[in-house]
Amino acid sequence: MKGTPLTATHARITAVDTYDIRFPTSRELDGSDAMNPDPDYSAAYVVLRTDAADGFEGHGFTFTIGRGNDVQVAAIDALRPHLVGRSVQELCADPGSVNRDLIGDSQLRWLGPEKGVMHMAIGAVVNAVWDLAAKRAGQPLWRLLAHAEPEWLVSQVDFRYIADALTPEDALHLLREGRTGLAEREAALLERGYPGYTTSPGWLGYSDEKLTRLAKQAVADGFTQIKLKVGADLDDDLRRMRTARAAVGDGVRIAIDANQRWNVGEAIEWTRALADLDPYWIEEPTSPDDILGHAAVRRGVAPVKVATGEHVQNRIVFKQLLQAEAIDVLQIDAARVGGVNENLAILLLAAKFGVPVCPHAGGVGLCELVQHLSMFDYLALSGTTDDRVIEYVDHLHEHFTVPVVMREGHYVAPLTPGFSATMRPESLTEYRYPDGAFWAADLAGREEVA
Amino acid sequence: MKGTPLTATHARITAVDTYDIRFPTSRELDGSDAMNPDPDYSAAYVVLRTDAADGFEGHGFTFTIGRGNDVQVAAIDALRPHLVGRSVQELCADPGSVNRDLIGDSQLRWLGPEKGVMHMAIGAVVNAVWDLAAKRAGQPLWRLLAHAEPEWLVSQVDFRYIADALTPEDALHLLREGRTGLAEREAALLERGYPGYTTSPGWLGYSDEKLTRLAKQAVADGFTQIKLKVGADLDDDLRRMRTARAAVGDGVRIAIDANQRWNVGEAIEWTRALADLDPYWIEEPTSPDDILGHAAVRRGVAPVKVATGEHVQNRIVFKQLLQAEAIDVLQIDAARVGGVNENLAILLLAAKFGVPVCPHAGGVGLCELVQHLSMFDYLALSGTTDDRVIEYVDHLHEHFTVPVVMREGHYVAPLTPGFSATMRPESLTEYRYPDGAFWAADLAGREEVA
Repeated sequence: MKGTPLTATHARITAVDTYDIRFPTSRELDGSDAMNPDPDYSAAYVVLRTDAADGFEGHGFTFTIGRGNDVQVAAIDALRPHLVGRSVQELCADPGSVNRDLIGDSQLRWLGPEKGVMHMAIGAVVNAVWDLAAKRAGQPLWRLLAHAEPEWLVSQVDFRYIADALTPEDALHLLREGRTGLAEREAALLERGYPGYTTSPGWLGYSDEKLTRLAKQAVADGFTQIKLKVGADLDDDLRRMRTARAAVGDGVRIAIDANQRWNVGEAIEWTRALADLDPYWIEEPTSPDDILGHAAVRRGVAPVKVATGEHVQNRIVFKQLLQAEAIDVLQIDAARVGGVNENLAILLLAAKFGVPVCPHAGGVGLCELVQHLSMFDYLALSGTTDDRVIEYVDHLHEHFTVPVVMREGHYVAPLTPGFSATMRPESLTEYRYPDGAFWAADLAGREEVA
Repeated sequence: MKGTPLTATHARITAVDTYDIRFPTSRELDGSDAMNPDPDYSAAYVVLRTDAADGFEGHGFTFTIGRGNDVQVAAIDALRPHLVGRSVQELCADPGSVNRDLIGDSQLRWLGPEKGVMHMAIGAVVNAVWDLAAKRAGQPLWRLLAHAEPEWLVSQVDFRYIADALTPEDALHLLREGRTGLAEREAALLERGYPGYTTSPGWLGYSDEKLTRLAKQAVADGFTQIKLKVGADLDDDLRRMRTARAAVGDGVRIAIDANQRWNVGEAIEWTRALADLDPYWIEEPTSPDDILGHAAVRRGVAPVKVATGEHVQNRIVFKQLLQAEAIDVLQIDAARVGGVNENLAILLLAAKFGVPVCPHAGGVGLCELVQHLSMFDYLALSGTTDDRVIEYVDHLHEHFTVPVVMREGHYVAPLTPGFSATMRPESLTEYRYPDGAFWAADLAGREEVA
């Protein structure tokens, strides 16, 4: 049968192709903050190819900010033997099985466990499996998840190390309760979308004039929350916060984000110094590993809320942030933890503890991915969008075949089947590092100058 | 001056050479436990070469258990641009500067931060710098550290994210106090060595007969503590624990090690079920990320002690384990965190909180490395070896140029300058994967069979 496209029943994964994709964002200071002065937004990108007649591929990626993207690609490559030859139908019927296999590889586990480069690689691959599953089901991922049987969703969650806070019975109960009113919420989602907030005005590298202009634009675009990067210089932060407040008025929330810049004591002092200007939340005040530190910061800066999550490595740390009452806002990231399956666990934990989820996004393709998870959360778990917003940054969407669409400050629910993870082929060709057209020309230019 | 060996003042790092070294240990079930059934003990190995006339090289490595060792090598390779061209003299006078540079690379930081593959790579390189520094100083590392000025040692510690638990002033105070009696302790160390305990009898894959034989041998060899792997099957564990107790008698401590097998509730139940057989500590009862979980386990299993650390990712998690009173025994690992500098921070935290340090070792070369840190701890911080033991496993020492020497259950203090990290050149040649002589023959054999 070699060479003949197969029906879905017999189809197998035939290749796991990886790409080191980098965009030269550091040249514009897009994305600059107190800890990341010059990011080159990048993706360690993976495509699962099959011999099925339908021609569907599973796409996924890890977001990085430049150097080390090759290490991330090497980590995805190390997972290839777990995937090639597997039954497409079995994989898509139970993405949790590949999640368990990859996390359970006893030798690879030593490189984490469940954290850092190896875990993000697992997340990229698991997300690619979900992309393939949703494409084959002819559904956008948010809709596939929202209409899935609660029992099946529970089977997709790894309860190891979180069972002291969330049992399978808890999860089933939450998902069954979440069914009430699903149709009405889905209609509302399709009509209004899911609220977003924008970080575009607030990067550290921008002038006050640019901050003012972009903040006014954000309000005009319908956003009710913006975010400023802080933490490099307190006087600058006070001035920028006043500038932003003057631009947006009192009715718009301004969150602030320190990107882990501070120790616990500094975080409390600095945030208190900005408190008169009514910041809505302080994000990443200190190390993402410091659960007890976040709890101390939260006690020290109330009523300013504490938010974190974009660098939180896995469900086990999120569990403790909730147990320790360390956060007011939980910020999932679609491409940091072990993919959709682990994010299901985290959304369930947040629902159990009654903490709103406001995802981290931006970067490359993070908006595209995470909107699906928030829409599922709304339809099947939280039941509300009150005090819930998805971060939005207007960067690099043009590289995706189904980019996010914003309307009146809301994410429009995507209707194209899949996880919105697919990059345009010409972008993969242009920005592959170091041999894509852009980088080949760029590196040749640098050699000429040198 | 190209090609001419340079004096130390002008010497530079000229190359960062990496090696993927793997030993086929899975074929003997050495090292098998409840989570790691078939490890191939491996090292992502790095050599810093210089153009100094003295010919010294800095050697370091990350320990892994097989698959993924290539990813770890790729991560070390990503650090090369930070090192090549640097002044050898400046580097060795201030290894903390390279530690700060590597941890502070804002783009690479995204891949952690300070955890997993990227952080272990930093640890390998930082340890190689210390190896070079100690060789140039003509001292074994333990002695270089023990005689270093307290102010300089404090300058080598990164207090970011731990200053709420340990300030530079705290550290200076501890190190100055530790000076009292240094000469007497050094004489005692040179005479008696540092106490070890052995895990060699207790691997899960061994028969009861082999367990009995090796446990009796351990006592005959002078060890006063052994360790058993547990967590796969409770009845087996009860039988093996009784077998071990019968072999060693009541005067020898038996620690047990679950290698993260359990959830919090299971850890408490299982350990209580073994408590009548008087286990000294329960090691890694659950996820190394679960600080609050360890605290719950400790409350639940007292008076059995709780020990962890070999998979604890960095000083920030150790800080919280101490703050939460979650552990009775802190187990540093020489090659998991960011190298000697971060281990200095962890040893200082343990001293501040009064918790004894009993290092994880075994693997490839972990005994060789970590003995230096415990000896420094004894001479300069803890001032005692009471209730302190370094793990010892009799594996793979023959591949090192200065292997550990055990005498009467004690590690003999090494006198050769350096960090004891140097592997024999013929081992590098034989076990390089996949092209070293052993693997080339092995892989060819497998192809023939297939």
